[in-house]
Amino acid sequence: MQHIISVKQLEDKKLLQELFDFATKLKKLSPVEYPKPLQDKIIATLFFEPSTRTRLSFETATQRLGGKIISTENASISSSNYKGETLEDTIRVINSYADGIVMRHPETGSAARAAAVSKIPIINAGDGGAGEHPTQGLLDVYTIYESKGTFDGLKVGMVGDLLNGRTMHSTLQLLSMYDVEFYFFSPKSLSLPKSYLQILKKQGRKFTELYGWDDALKHIDALYMTRVQKERFKKAKDYLAVKDDFILTKSLTRQLKKDAIILHPLPRINEIPPEIDADPRALYFEQARNGLFARMSLLNHLYS
Amino acid sequence: MQHIISVKQLEDKKLLQELFDFATKLKKLSPVEYPKPLQDKIIATLFFEPSTRTRLSFETATQRLGGKIISTENASISSSNYKGETLEDTIRVINSYADGIVMRHPETGSAARAAAVSKIPIINAGDGGAGEHPTQGLLDVYTIYESKGTFDGLKVGMVGDLLNGRTMHSTLQLLSMYDVEFYFFSPKSLSLPKSYLQILKKQGRKFTELYGWDDALKHIDALYMTRVQKERFKKAKDYLAVKDDFILTKSLTRQLKKDAIILHPLPRINEIPPEIDADPRALYFEQARNGLFARMSLLNHLYS
Amino acid sequence: MQHIISVKQLEDKKLLQELFDFATKLKKLSPVEYPKPLQDKIIATLFFEPSTRTRLSFETATQRLGGKIISTENASISSSNYKGETLEDTIRVINSYADGIVMRHPETGSAARAAAVSKIPIINAGDGGAGEHPTQGLLDVYTIYESKGTFDGLKVGMVGDLLNGRTMHSTLQLLSMYDVEFYFFSPKSLSLPKSYLQILKKQGRKFTELYGWDDALKHIDALYMTRVQKERFKKAKDYLAVKDDFILTKSLTRQLKKDAIILHPLPRINEIPPEIDADPRALYFEQARNGLFARMSLLNHLYS
Repeated sequence: MQHIISVKQLEDKKLLQELFDFATKLKKLSPVEYPKPLQDKIIATLFFEPSTRTRLSFETATQRLGGKIISTENASISSSNYKGETLEDTIRVINSYADGIVMRHPETGSAARAAAVSKIPIINAGDGGAGEHPTQGLLDVYTIYESKGTFDGLKVGMVGDLLNGRTMHSTLQLLSMYDVEFYFFSPKSLSLPKSYLQILKKQGRKFTELYGWDDALKHIDALYMTRVQKERFKKAKDYLAVKDDFILTKSLTRQLKKDAIILHPLPRINEIPPEIDADPRALYFEQARNGLFARMSLLNHLYS
Repeated sequence: MQHIISVKQLEDKKLLQELFDFATKLKKLSPVEYPKPLQDKIIATLFFEPSTRTRLSFETATQRLGGKIISTENASISSSNYKGETLEDTIRVINSYADGIVMRHPETGSAARAAAVSKIPIINAGDGGAGEHPTQGLLDVYTIYESKGTFDGLKVGMVGDLLNGRTMHSTLQLLSMYDVEFYFFSPKSLSLPKSYLQILKKQGRKFTELYGWDDALKHIDALYMTRVQKERFKKAKDYLAVKDDFILTKSLTRQLKKDAIILHPLPRINEIPPEIDADPRALYFEQARNGLFARMSLLNHLYS
Repeated sequence: MQHIISVKQLEDKKLLQELFDFATKLKKLSPVEYPKPLQDKIIATLFFEPSTRTRLSFETATQRLGGKIISTENASISSSNYKGETLEDTIRVINSYADGIVMRHPETGSAARAAAVSKIPIINAGDGGAGEHPTQGLLDVYTIYESKGTFDGLKVGMVGDLLNGRTMHSTLQLLSMYDVEFYFFSPKSLSLPKSYLQILKKQGRKFTELYGWDDALKHIDALYMTRVQKERFKKAKDYLAVKDDFILTKSLTRQLKKDAIILHPLPRINEIPPEIDADPRALYFEQARNGLFARMSLLNHLYS
């Protein structure tokens, strides 16, 4: 039994390679050929805030691997929650029903609290704005690996809100294990927290911080775009001041290498205009699709 | 691969006959005998507004045919939607998880927009007040066919809000392919839009518009009741003025032929009093039941 | 075919014994060994108010027994409900989709109304504050039986809000069939309704009403704690006056017998502090787990 609470648990090159290889194997199979490690198992998707994308991805992954689902779309409106039950008690009770819990919760640290009392695996599907979302990190790095065949020697650009982007932080942590050079493009007010720069320094990785679009674009192998999240700003004015600073126009994509790839954790708003979608380098929908296979691979690892 | 967006796609006598025959065949089987064309397939029910009846009907149909479900009861409260993701992006992502999408959305035309970007079948389960709900049309005409064995020569009465009734419009379009004579009973302010009268004229169908209950009732073979929908009126006064004009009293049913049938898409409010339910001509609950078999028949057609 | 609307239907010692024995048998099996009486059957969980715990428990039970689920997390927001459809019509329509309905509804008496028009089993999963929740009563008495091997000669203490506690009333009714002696601990304003005292007198059971913690604690074999429910009070002041009167402190548990058991229907707020959880006599999470097996046992009884 093993919880997946933090991207730190995935910071293991051998494990990652194994998860990548299995995901790639799954992508080549048709549904009838998938292994069924979840046969006779029930996974609870316990979402204390709604996230259609993530929930449906895990529910598909579970069912593709032979498992069954008990599901909450919005557990925060449930009466037990309303009546003041602690998260810990809810988890203890769900332990009697299911063989694993995929959990989303608005509070940072909630997944670790759940894991502390759970005898069945807890998989963190996002815990708060400053929290983690480890399977998003996993699918991001898998997409880069699948496309490039390696991480070593890659130049990765990260763009947008680097201060708050939960998924980007998870991805960055995983990438920092490899010989990757980073370019950070963000408004100065949304630059990467110092703690992450420390990690990179400690690992001996090269990085460059840029506060506007830059010629460096032409060196990038993988460009990871993010949304400037309106809900992170206290003042509308501050949001409006920076929200359009990092839109990836068609003209900018011309600076990118022919074999560069463009990623985005989605949902996107306007930071990637729809006209870019047809660009063969635009992999963000394939990346979302990889989310299914990365999660199947992880579930298979946990339950085989 | 084929989307079912509009009732127009069902305007094909041969296809309808095939769908009717298969629905009738299914009605005679027990669940264990149903074919399983959806084995190893996952259908997403993506409801951007809740509709328990329609969603559960499709989810039963899917499971009865061997398929699995990923479901949203109320996707409009999902965070991706809240964050401003376009419908098109949501559909592209769900394409990676499921083998088909049954979709309900409050905006007219949304199902067609979804189909334009989807590589898996989109089945429109209602798109806006002025939009379509093709499987409701299908189950309506199937119920008439099942009961009468033919459409030709029938006199069909349509009652209530003929201006806004989405399902009635779908049903009318399908019926207009056959030699049916129509009687429209409605308040003058809620009479059938001119465009539908044009369709009937073009097809050479006879019709009579009536603005109150009328002796013509005694000729009707199938009486299709609808609810006067409060939510369509801007002023409460206008609703109150007409809401009780077309209540089917017991005394009115005595004017109906012995073998007439009474239909209603449900939900009903007061337009059919509960005392009518015991009348053997009252088929509206059987009609709802036929919804399951009509949808199973359609899914079988799409996935066999 | 049989509905389970009221705990009265379970007031049958032979039936209870059969349900207990089967639940105990199920607890010893692994999921792959469970019988599958619900194979090819669909159960609808129709929750007009959310209750994650109860819904997921029934959905697990159904799937463990081979059945499939159509589910509503919060049917009260569905459009048919909003449009004013009666509960009876909703039930009639769901009859066409499912082989059974597990129903939760805020109105007392609603489950009986549903059963009156339903041709498939209705299982009442809670109908209103003054209503019933028969499977909760079942799992409570099962937990006592499992632990003690008998009811006869037991001293049962019931603590907290004895006026409004729906589940406690169901449990009390079942226990009153056996030779049990009762001790009621409650604020005077929340004491047990006279009607229940009448039942006990009629059955010839001994009972003692106490309006504070009491030395009688040392005689108790099973202590059934309940939450003082904030939502039952009209005035916040009245709630605050009594809410902390019956907190089971560690020092109080020292008065309990070595082999006493502590039960609680959950959710708990502060009436049982978390430090009590490690006490081997604290069975409330095992009680929640027994809910799964009691419900599986009941479903097996209804569908075998």
